[in-house]
Amino acid sequence: MVVLRVITLLTDFGLRDSYVAEMKGVILRLCPEAVVVDISHEIRKYDIEEGAYNLARAVRYFPKGTIHVGVVDPGVGGPRKPIIIEAHDAFFVGPDNGLLAPAAERLGIKGVYEITRMDLLPPRVSDVFHGRDIFAPTAALLARGLKPSDLGSQLSEYRRLPLYTVKVENGRIYAKIIHVDGFGNLVTNVTYEDLDAAGIEVGTTLEVQIGGATYRIPFVRAFSSVPVGELLLLVAGGGYLEISVNQGNASAELGVEKGVEVRLSPL
Amino acid sequence: MVVLRVITLLTDFGLRDSYVAEMKGVILRLCPEAVVVDISHEIRKYDIEEGAYNLARAVRYFPKGTIHVGVVDPGVGGPRKPIIIEAHDAFFVGPDNGLLAPAAERLGIKGVYEITRMDLLPPRVSDVFHGRDIFAPTAALLARGLKPSDLGSQLSEYRRLPLYTVKVENGRIYAKIIHVDGFGNLVTNVTYEDLDAAGIEVGTTLEVQIGGATYRIPFVRAFSSVPVGELLLLVAGGGYLEISVNQGNASAELGVEKGVEVRLSPL
Amino acid sequence: MVVLRVITLLTDFGLRDSYVAEMKGVILRLCPEAVVVDISHEIRKYDIEEGAYNLARAVRYFPKGTIHVGVVDPGVGGPRKPIIIEAHDAFFVGPDNGLLAPAAERLGIKGVYEITRMDLLPPRVSDVFHGRDIFAPTAALLARGLKPSDLGSQLSEYRRLPLYTVKVENGRIYAKIIHVDGFGNLVTNVTYEDLDAAGIEVGTTLEVQIGGATYRIPFVRAFSSVPVGELLLLVAGGGYLEISVNQGNASAELGVEKGVEVRLSPL
Repeated sequence: MVVLRVITLLTDFGLRDSYVAEMKGVILRLCPEAVVVDISHEIRKYDIEEGAYNLARAVRYFPKGTIHVGVVDPGVGGPRKPIIIEAHDAFFVGPDNGLLAPAAERLGIKGVYEITRMDLLPPRVSDVFHGRDIFAPTAALLARGLKPSDLGSQLSEYRRLPLYTVKVENGRIYAKIIHVDGFGNLVTNVTYEDLDAAGIEVGTTLEVQIGGATYRIPFVRAFSSVPVGELLLLVAGGGYLEISVNQGNASAELGVEKGVEVRLSPL
Repeated sequence: MVVLRVITLLTDFGLRDSYVAEMKGVILRLCPEAVVVDISHEIRKYDIEEGAYNLARAVRYFPKGTIHVGVVDPGVGGPRKPIIIEAHDAFFVGPDNGLLAPAAERLGIKGVYEITRMDLLPPRVSDVFHGRDIFAPTAALLARGLKPSDLGSQLSEYRRLPLYTVKVENGRIYAKIIHVDGFGNLVTNVTYEDLDAAGIEVGTTLEVQIGGATYRIPFVRAFSSVPVGELLLLVAGGGYLEISVNQGNASAELGVEKGVEVRLSPL
Repeated sequence: MVVLRVITLLTDFGLRDSYVAEMKGVILRLCPEAVVVDISHEIRKYDIEEGAYNLARAVRYFPKGTIHVGVVDPGVGGPRKPIIIEAHDAFFVGPDNGLLAPAAERLGIKGVYEITRMDLLPPRVSDVFHGRDIFAPTAALLARGLKPSDLGSQLSEYRRLPLYTVKVENGRIYAKIIHVDGFGNLVTNVTYEDLDAAGIEVGTTLEVQIGGATYRIPFVRAFSSVPVGELLLLVAGGGYLEISVNQGNASAELGVEKGVEVRLSPL
């Protein structure tokens, strides 16, 4: 039986240069059966948070056992560790700089490993392209059945992204805006799971404190559930709660950008 | 025997965000053997005609049984129907807004179905991303062998694109400019099949009425068949008749844009 | 046993239009088992040297037997020949305009063939898209096991790119800048193999004559091996020797662009 193994790639390399293709060549050389899927290579250069957001959005849709390689790595060649995160039904491979953490945390982390067995990887001539020389071959070896513990040693800590920490206290959710999309929708770090835990359901109205103001906003399933120009809360494509304006731009209307804090309480 | 099934994707989502990758994850989850090929994700936002043109160009080159998913869908969440078009040796999945019609018509339409069996698709939390939540899993289920009639109910009508209707009357072809490419070539909606039907062959000269003027233009096989700067007719890469200028810009020279009518008669 | 065969594509077609997808459709139609990998489709229009550089960088990372299709082809339809280059463990398919030569030369050329057996390829209606109509099906037929000699006749010559010729004389390397990357790194045409042949090893310092000036530059393995702002020599990701400035822009600092000559001697 042939087991097809999916390996995804997310980088800030762009598609003009051959960098991404070199990673794919390395993977296919070590694991010809791998199915390689691009998540994005147009992440803003060195923008770990934007990379983390796109990875965290996408991972829930991939098959069990998928291996996700993320390379937004301003510290390449420096002291940051190359790691494997073993999560529930998925692996993550990349630098320990927070890029992989939100996605892995969504799936549930089982263990974190520093990649130390460089002797198992193809030899390399320089120390400037870990995406191709360390992360891609590590992913290919995992796809061939090696275990994270075959490739390195377990770590007790890993780097998290503070932006993704949600706090629920006294029935109130303390959250942040982690992304503003092209339509001006304000994506919070609140997942469907958080809302479930807080007992908040579609159809209710929430009190939302953000940018120094307080709003009452209905939690709905479609933009068109409110009149044009009105605010709404929606768990959109990414599985994160968004503050939106029907056919409008919530970011512009509320004067709010990425990183801003938001508090949500049921009425 | 493993049958590899090709699924193509054409959208206006761009490649920066994880949207396209989420569609691919959904497909591979339901049908690990699927071979997913991108046609384009850089269609101008909401430009159904540009999407339709690229899809119609490309489909003839794909293997029998290919499943084409098209998502240029300004009406997502509204009343437009999600459909499957069964064509000769191919399936099309997407919104019923004209996007799929020209491509399916080129291959020959056998039946059109509204996708109604949402219970067969993975559950979804919102109604804003049919590309991932309806069209991608529908394509994957077709790739696994389900029939369109398993997934919905047959329709007697579908939305066409008026731009693609050619009329042949009294030996004259009434056509339109459906696309102006980057070189200023004027792509008409006249296919090789239309020319065959009208008995027009390479090597003849046609009378062409367009933009209020009349030209005599030779129908050739290569740009270089006429002197530099002269007009020519050519069935180019896309299988559509084009009006071009050898090493020049026909759109600029004739002052003609997309949508303009053109009449062709043999001399 | 299923042998997966990798076919790579490098073009200047961009990703907006359906051109690249049409090539993939043709390949999958003739060879459903082919694994198609994009190297780049964002090569600057008609820039053969930029295409050649990216192809030459990437090929060493692909599996044995990979078939590389390159289409940066300003002379399409003209007298330039369509060719296959058989190299050590790889094939190259494209126009004989120098695009394929540096990559094939890095692997070692075994033979060059003009593609003449057009009768073995699918019929075509025009002469403007050799990428889809000649090069893609040729690659697919090679992937299916045909030999270059089945598809054409051997040539005694092929077009080279002068930019890639290195001369070693009296212990001195005469080289050129073949590429300036986005960080201002000056990529020379000197490969690791050339350095080996000249007996130059990491850890030594070289005298470098370039742009009318002479520098003493250490040959190191990482940017951080020299203080911030200082010059270094490094065999970077592409396997070519680069002149760089740690956290700086060597091109700006030295006032040097692509095509400039450089002489290197051990001290």
